[in-house]
Amino acid sequence: MHDISINESFTINPIGYIESDYPDKFGIPRQPGLATAAKATLVLTPPFNTPLSVRGLEAFSHLWISFIFHRSPEEWAPLVRPPRLGGNKKIGVFASRSTHRPNRLGLSLVELVGIDTHNGVSLLLKGADLMTGTPVVDIKPYLPWTEAVPNARSGFAPAPPPFYPVEFSSAAETALAQRADASDLRRLITQVLGQDPRPAYHQDQLEREYGMQLRDVNIRFQVQQMPELGNVVYIINIQKNN
Amino acid sequence: MHDISINESFTINPIGYIESDYPDKFGIPRQPGLATAAKATLVLTPPFNTPLSVRGLEAFSHLWISFIFHRSPEEWAPLVRPPRLGGNKKIGVFASRSTHRPNRLGLSLVELVGIDTHNGVSLLLKGADLMTGTPVVDIKPYLPWTEAVPNARSGFAPAPPPFYPVEFSSAAETALAQRADASDLRRLITQVLGQDPRPAYHQDQLEREYGMQLRDVNIRFQVQQMPELGNVVYIINIQKNN
Repeated sequence: MHDISINESFTINPIGYIESDYPDKFGIPRQPGLATAAKATLVLTPPFNTPLSVRGLEAFSHLWISFIFHRSPEEWAPLVRPPRLGGNKKIGVFASRSTHRPNRLGLSLVELVGIDTHNGVSLLLKGADLMTGTPVVDIKPYLPWTEAVPNARSGFAPAPPPFYPVEFSSAAETALAQRADASDLRRLITQVLGQDPRPAYHQDQLEREYGMQLRDVNIRFQVQQMPELGNVVYIINIQKNN
Repeated sequence: MHDISINESFTINPIGYIESDYPDKFGIPRQPGLATAAKATLVLTPPFNTPLSVRGLEAFSHLWISFIFHRSPEEWAPLVRPPRLGGNKKIGVFASRSTHRPNRLGLSLVELVGIDTHNGVSLLLKGADLMTGTPVVDIKPYLPWTEAVPNARSGFAPAPPPFYPVEFSSAAETALAQRADASDLRRLITQVLGQDPRPAYHQDQLEREYGMQLRDVNIRFQVQQMPELGNVVYIINIQKNN
């Protein structure tokens, strides 16, 4: 029954790339849909950027984006340590959504909010967890009657990750107030930083400062333990990149 | 914002291949999950076939399988004619699940019913729409809290395709009765043939005979129009392949 193609390699060519609120890997939510304030554009490249390629796509609210984790190393290992398990328990790479996987293929379900065909083709997406520059290799419409399985069992990841309150320092408030996208950026920062992007093995490192890139700013933050609230993400400062 | 990787190609290597009830392309249901009686095995190949790679996977009920439509031509076109639209309306390739797409990447949600690690690693799947020999390039666990979106809009494919009654000739009944897998094969034939696998442009060709491969048999069938029932799929004969 074996086919000659079993050991054959395949070449895939990007059909487009992502421009998003995430200029860097660090801190990107671990699943799409968790930060709905995050905007992204999928820009199709020639010869795929004809409006014909996306005819009828506007009738779908959600899309599957297949992409390459191009900033992950090409090495893979059979075991990974998911952040969801505190980073100290190992599970199989195929039981995970780890970026360190064979073929570095990623898969994200995103909301389609608009299609711009004025100059090539750009798809406007919401809730994407995709870094700027990510090469996209396929787009497929989402089919709820076969792909929505609310009662599926999902092992070590049965529910969304915890979400912490986010507080802004007065310096951060001042920086926000000077921007045209103030309320939108505040929502994005709250959604993304509230997920505590610190590495799993830093969970006990309270007060330590971290930096994360969002849009054109660098956000300094730390996690504090507050008497009644438990962990709170404290935004120390928001600084525009040079 | 552009990354150097935008025009870069990527090489992907299969991590395994499929052995299924579908030895041939013709007649395979157009989405997974529509023929739950269809069994498939995903056989991992070296170096991926270590039990470590799938540790923890048994806690998930559903998996995403990314694969290559290896029997489809490498050519793609911006417009396709989905069978769901009767084969005479064109939509964009990225608004479809057509197999004739750039990179020939397929994506199926399947049920995981067992993991066999006695000799390498085999995953036992239910409801797969995958042809024997299909090269698999990734496995990811299904996450219902982010990927089940029952209210998503799905354009020209808002519901499962129609399903026709299936009737067996006495010759077909006799052939079935001689098999150890009689009831199971009957269920599979009913689920797969009831979806009317005829090409969309043959919809008016009643009484015309077609053949479809399932497991080790060739099934001859035709579509008949019955007074009260409308279209009925009539199984003319079931013959074992040589």
